[in-house]
Amino acid sequence: MAPGGDSEFELIRRMTRSVACFSDQLLTGIGDDCAVVAGGAEADLLLTADLLVEGVHFDRKWFSLRQIGSKAVRVNVSDIAAMGGVPDFALVTLAIPPDVSAASLEELYAGIREAAETFRVTIAGGDLSRSPDVLVLDVMVLGTTERGRAVLRSGARVGDRIFVSGTLGAAALGLLAARTQQRGPDAESAMARQCRPEPGIGLGRALSQGRLATAMIDLSDGLSSDLAHICEASGVGAKIRLQDLPVSDSCRRLAAAMAAEPFDFVLHGGEDYALLFTAGPDAVAVFGSRRFPFTVTEIGEILSPDAGIVLEYPDGRCEALRPSGYDHFR
Amino acid sequence: MAPGGDSEFELIRRMTRSVACFSDQLLTGIGDDCAVVAGGAEADLLLTADLLVEGVHFDRKWFSLRQIGSKAVRVNVSDIAAMGGVPDFALVTLAIPPDVSAASLEELYAGIREAAETFRVTIAGGDLSRSPDVLVLDVMVLGTTERGRAVLRSGARVGDRIFVSGTLGAAALGLLAARTQQRGPDAESAMARQCRPEPGIGLGRALSQGRLATAMIDLSDGLSSDLAHICEASGVGAKIRLQDLPVSDSCRRLAAAMAAEPFDFVLHGGEDYALLFTAGPDAVAVFGSRRFPFTVTEIGEILSPDAGIVLEYPDGRCEALRPSGYDHFR
Repeated sequence: MAPGGDSEFELIRRMTRSVACFSDQLLTGIGDDCAVVAGGAEADLLLTADLLVEGVHFDRKWFSLRQIGSKAVRVNVSDIAAMGGVPDFALVTLAIPPDVSAASLEELYAGIREAAETFRVTIAGGDLSRSPDVLVLDVMVLGTTERGRAVLRSGARVGDRIFVSGTLGAAALGLLAARTQQRGPDAESAMARQCRPEPGIGLGRALSQGRLATAMIDLSDGLSSDLAHICEASGVGAKIRLQDLPVSDSCRRLAAAMAAEPFDFVLHGGEDYALLFTAGPDAVAVFGSRRFPFTVTEIGEILSPDAGIVLEYPDGRCEALRPSGYDHFR
Repeated sequence: MAPGGDSEFELIRRMTRSVACFSDQLLTGIGDDCAVVAGGAEADLLLTADLLVEGVHFDRKWFSLRQIGSKAVRVNVSDIAAMGGVPDFALVTLAIPPDVSAASLEELYAGIREAAETFRVTIAGGDLSRSPDVLVLDVMVLGTTERGRAVLRSGARVGDRIFVSGTLGAAALGLLAARTQQRGPDAESAMARQCRPEPGIGLGRALSQGRLATAMIDLSDGLSSDLAHICEASGVGAKIRLQDLPVSDSCRRLAAAMAAEPFDFVLHGGEDYALLFTAGPDAVAVFGSRRFPFTVTEIGEILSPDAGIVLEYPDGRCEALRPSGYDHFR
């Protein structure tokens, strides 16, 4: 793969290019946060599945089983949030290695239940198997949006502004802090962001119901990769302003303590599960009003496709922003 | 666990007993072949997930990647068949170990596509990850039935007759034949049943649309276990007549060649993915008519719960039939 290439995405696309579509109900298939299926006069259905594999997505040294169970549900709920939907039902599939006892399985399930109850998701079924070696969790969530209101990755238009919710970089910094055994409140707060994503269901609903966002994705792979997904799906370019990227003071202190560059994590660190979205210039006034109860930060703008995706430094210098987020197959 | 206990089922029940239900749309939750969700005026939605784990559900010594991919879809389609439904959409999640190359991944996907196209299932999404060690496939299928027509495990009534489709025991005999390196057409035909289940969508639809079946399940764990699931869900007992169980001549010859007792496989061997269902005495005439284009065999009857589940031998002697099918956690 070329540096910066997105081989997981490529692999999925290559394998699925000849998949037949047998249904006129499929509105959006492979390549967005969720598939969108026409569900009748009032609602569209959203379908998503996210897999957590021990040794790839998590290490039991840094995560409790309860945290792993909770996260497996939360990352799926975040995909529903990224479409502007509400999560309704989950199927939970577990492959359990021999060293996970029945008692610790209860811990795993307690985490699954905690997240399901927080987001009012009903666990409707799933499957359970032994695993020879590592713990595997696959969660599928079925959600809904009002008909025609799902926010896709493909709707960004030249002139749109780019926004993110929350602050960036904490989840990836938290993992590095755990691995390097950092202590203290900044490390703990960052690790909490890694272990316990907070899907933006409320914000996603407001953007979808108010027809405010033109395109949206959740930040799972990292800003540079996820912005590239929006630009590719929408056929546009983008400029991000480094000085406008929201970074918490706690993250800056933690990065300094680890002699790390915070913007490496802000730009490329995955798993923040904030929402990255685009909106027309008119929406800026709405986001600034007291009636809009969410904090979003404008970080750049959508350009024509030939501009590529660029990062602007405070001195006005621009350089290409290559997708360098997490990719299992790179 | 007590001998004959169903520990996987117990484990699922124990872990999910306190799962909250946040939706009045959930008509049937954990404990049937599919969850059933009210989907509007005309249709109910069916949701199912089935996991295949290397070293637990399959061995790459006996299965090609193409067969594994196909089977992962087929076993889920069979769950939809067991409710009397039609499969519409699939999410396919794969965890890929390092020794599966991109080229062999194409083989896996070719098998997934073959099964999806055979049953006209649209692959709407999924997830893809590296796995440190073993190949894992989790497929979720979304299907539909006409409103209120899903055939549950819980509808069997005293006096109902018990039926199966097809013949029994071939899939488990096929696996033994592969492991013991049997050759010849009988071994090949049995192994084909193991590798390539044929979900009974057509029969399931006829039973559901004609309101003919009172309870139904697909034979994944084995007749003794799956019949116990129906009896437990319905609160009834049952009698099975050994001499009426359908076994092919090919299976009898193969069992003889391996010095195996064919009825061990017929009663307890899993993965036949035939349909096991119950129907009122009136339905027997329908099943015998030329207008009913499926072969089903009456194998017993539903009794009161205090009768337990018994096997009747040709000499009239009866003994308890204990669930001895496949259970990962036993």
